[in-house]
Amino acid sequence: MAKNLTKRSEDYSKWYNELVINADLAESSGVRGCMVIKPYGFSIWEKMQAELDRMFKETGHQNAYFPLFIPKSYFSKEASHVDGFAKECAIVTHYRLREDGKGGVEVDPDAKLEEELIVRPTSETIIWDTYRKWIQSYRDLPLLINQWANVVRWEMRTRLFLRTTEFLWQEGHTAHATKQEAIEETEQMVNIYAEFVENYMAVPVIKGLKTESERFAGAIETYCIEALMQDGKALQAGTSHFLGQNFAKAFDVKFTAKDGKQDYVWATSWGVSTRLMGALIMTHSDDKGLVLPPKLAPDQVVIVPIYRNDEQFDLVSEVAKEVMKELRSKGIRVKFDNRDTYKPGWKFNEYELKGVPVRLAIGPRDVENGTLELARRDTLTKESISRDNVASIVVDLMDEIQKNLYNKAASFRTEKTTEVSTYDEFKEVLNTKGGFILAHWDGTAETEEQIKNETKATIRCIPLDAKEEIGICMVTGKPSNKKVLFAKAY
Amino acid sequence: MAKNLTKRSEDYSKWYNELVINADLAESSGVRGCMVIKPYGFSIWEKMQAELDRMFKETGHQNAYFPLFIPKSYFSKEASHVDGFAKECAIVTHYRLREDGKGGVEVDPDAKLEEELIVRPTSETIIWDTYRKWIQSYRDLPLLINQWANVVRWEMRTRLFLRTTEFLWQEGHTAHATKQEAIEETEQMVNIYAEFVENYMAVPVIKGLKTESERFAGAIETYCIEALMQDGKALQAGTSHFLGQNFAKAFDVKFTAKDGKQDYVWATSWGVSTRLMGALIMTHSDDKGLVLPPKLAPDQVVIVPIYRNDEQFDLVSEVAKEVMKELRSKGIRVKFDNRDTYKPGWKFNEYELKGVPVRLAIGPRDVENGTLELARRDTLTKESISRDNVASIVVDLMDEIQKNLYNKAASFRTEKTTEVSTYDEFKEVLNTKGGFILAHWDGTAETEEQIKNETKATIRCIPLDAKEEIGICMVTGKPSNKKVLFAKAY
Repeated sequence: MAKNLTKRSEDYSKWYNELVINADLAESSGVRGCMVIKPYGFSIWEKMQAELDRMFKETGHQNAYFPLFIPKSYFSKEASHVDGFAKECAIVTHYRLREDGKGGVEVDPDAKLEEELIVRPTSETIIWDTYRKWIQSYRDLPLLINQWANVVRWEMRTRLFLRTTEFLWQEGHTAHATKQEAIEETEQMVNIYAEFVENYMAVPVIKGLKTESERFAGAIETYCIEALMQDGKALQAGTSHFLGQNFAKAFDVKFTAKDGKQDYVWATSWGVSTRLMGALIMTHSDDKGLVLPPKLAPDQVVIVPIYRNDEQFDLVSEVAKEVMKELRSKGIRVKFDNRDTYKPGWKFNEYELKGVPVRLAIGPRDVENGTLELARRDTLTKESISRDNVASIVVDLMDEIQKNLYNKAASFRTEKTTEVSTYDEFKEVLNTKGGFILAHWDGTAETEEQIKNETKATIRCIPLDAKEEIGICMVTGKPSNKKVLFAKAY
Repeated sequence: MAKNLTKRSEDYSKWYNELVINADLAESSGVRGCMVIKPYGFSIWEKMQAELDRMFKETGHQNAYFPLFIPKSYFSKEASHVDGFAKECAIVTHYRLREDGKGGVEVDPDAKLEEELIVRPTSETIIWDTYRKWIQSYRDLPLLINQWANVVRWEMRTRLFLRTTEFLWQEGHTAHATKQEAIEETEQMVNIYAEFVENYMAVPVIKGLKTESERFAGAIETYCIEALMQDGKALQAGTSHFLGQNFAKAFDVKFTAKDGKQDYVWATSWGVSTRLMGALIMTHSDDKGLVLPPKLAPDQVVIVPIYRNDEQFDLVSEVAKEVMKELRSKGIRVKFDNRDTYKPGWKFNEYELKGVPVRLAIGPRDVENGTLELARRDTLTKESISRDNVASIVVDLMDEIQKNLYNKAASFRTEKTTEVSTYDEFKEVLNTKGGFILAHWDGTAETEEQIKNETKATIRCIPLDAKEEIGICMVTGKPSNKKVLFAKAY
């Protein structure tokens, strides 16, 4: 039953897929490109949702729910939006099946919709069509709404969590009286994403602006957070868009200000998705399986009893239950795996695979000596600890493991971030070391495109904290005033 | 701005629609039959979700997520299931749009799917197709899984919350080694539903079994809970199905028992939906608007300041904030509406419309006298209370209001439940008094159908607590051993 994973160094992509499946996170379904999120994977996603939802509500946002379907014509109302989204989408054309006379069913040609419905790839259009009814005056603003939902984008090449035809996400859609307020909201949300990803997922990110060609379809400005995976590829972990008045104009959403003047409303939208699961997995995990930061681990501690007979089982169980109770009273999520159907060795492998931060083993000798064996998932170290100190040790360890994972990922990123001056150097680093590369760029879409075509690297973002400096574009030699962040990306 | 609702006695159906819209619960969208759940309505649904989710987890269930789309062929695998569901459904036939050359977009005929995908009306088929991979041995059982999801059933006549093309729900899908265990699970879940609806929604329900013709498509037995609305019509509030081995056989899901023998797995499924919002609204609300039980009210208490100038505002605000702090420390959800853009009278109407259980008003005289004005939404009574006792009074009131709403609804139901002996009496009660009618029935689908055609009343359920007694069917005179529950229903 020991499920040995392919090593990362052998085949990173294969390692990832095996880990996702064997750690019971997700699997492919019978529907092309759609995944099943398994209970263990879903329980991690639920923890993410709970924290994000709390952060959204603390900043004044409310949840609501908008329809899954969007009439086709809505997409045509915002020109760049339709270009970006309406192309690859699931289209509902009929509303009834009938018996096919061969024991199966077929589409009833008489039940054709007058206007086709698109399964939402994102909800700006249906939401702004609704906001027209909700917004009349400045009193109705700001409107700060979030939705947790499933969305569908017809992807040709899919990978579990990273790119699937259907995925789960949240999408915030806000409306404001002023441009300034909308920009502040956009920035607030990218900061909240960064805070969540760094403090809960223990994944360091770089905040920045997307270049025009990488912007959300319909946005004036797209803010993003970019993380670095262990294979040296970047992963966009969240985006926050300043939409200007584009959608308000497309859907005729105006408001009357205090002074009686009418103006179009200013908009933002922002989202993170189950893709974050991919970032979490690829940042921390190792060849033995998943490694979870304590703040998001469904079980933070697992207790495994070691015994040879019923008498020993009763003896160690008694202590295990006391320890469990003590840890729970400190707010630790702890599981006592007393299943008789599996051996301790199998359980050790299983919880390593599933990334449980701390494992406690208790055998008859431990009971005698007043000890426990504690194993850390992040460092794979083991030590014997005193039964009396278990609660304080474990509580401290939760913090320590959380920090250790972040620091490890941050060190890795520092090591894998290179500043270059020339295009040759750029290509060399990209092909040998990989990772993030900071380089001067002339600010044109042409040069960006050329670099992408020649190297497969893209501009991940223009970092918000980029130093102003005098420089020249590594490709064209044209002037540039700051280095931008390049990488190959998921 | 005072939104006067149509009176229930004038037009119950119009009253309901106006209330749902004006209390900011939901509204129709631009997509036929699909609703937008507005933030206030959604926050009530979130409270319901949280309690139900806790109850499911406490009984060992885990959440997971399965695809939105189901390949058409899956439906044909369980014969009665396809009859029940595949007829009215949204069908995805294409996966790409293209420009139509007239500034819009059209379906790309080259992007036709080989096999059409059905937007899930319920997920038994896709889930049991997955369970085949998850279940091999008795060690994998029981499998206790729930999913929170959106589903689509193409409805021709829709009403907000009660019947919409898309709705939100949870669907539990469990797999068991024995028939007995599956039946126990089915019964456990209908009991959990009853407990939730009675204790949190304050809506009394009757638990029972559906007749064969009203059973879920594919079920051996359907348990349900039935509630009575103020217009004397019944509303099915939740169902729990014992599916036997039907889906296991259709999707070939077998397990190896401890003794090495192979057998098909036993199944259940159970669900409640945003329809519960309709039941909540129609049970308690009155001509002034929504009435919410404290356990599900997003705001349990609202504080409205009464003032004529800034000085008075500062004075009452100070007390209001202290009261708010004090109530919050007792776990009460309280809101201080200090908006200057609306007058107190407007706010009073608004919170009556939105069903906030308790309103506290504070004016300068109250500050002077150490009093507050307390208004109860359920009884529409007002009294002056001492500032010093506010916390204990409000805490007690939360319980009292919760109980009062339940008792009021239970009394109404008792009053509106009639036992009849003859079919004439049955018709008479149905046409004058309405409500639940208990009558003997011969157990045949023919008689059930005849009654439905002649009176529009259906058998809501065979109550679990029905007394065994010797009787004769009110229509055919054939023997019957218990009375069953009839009503006109939503």
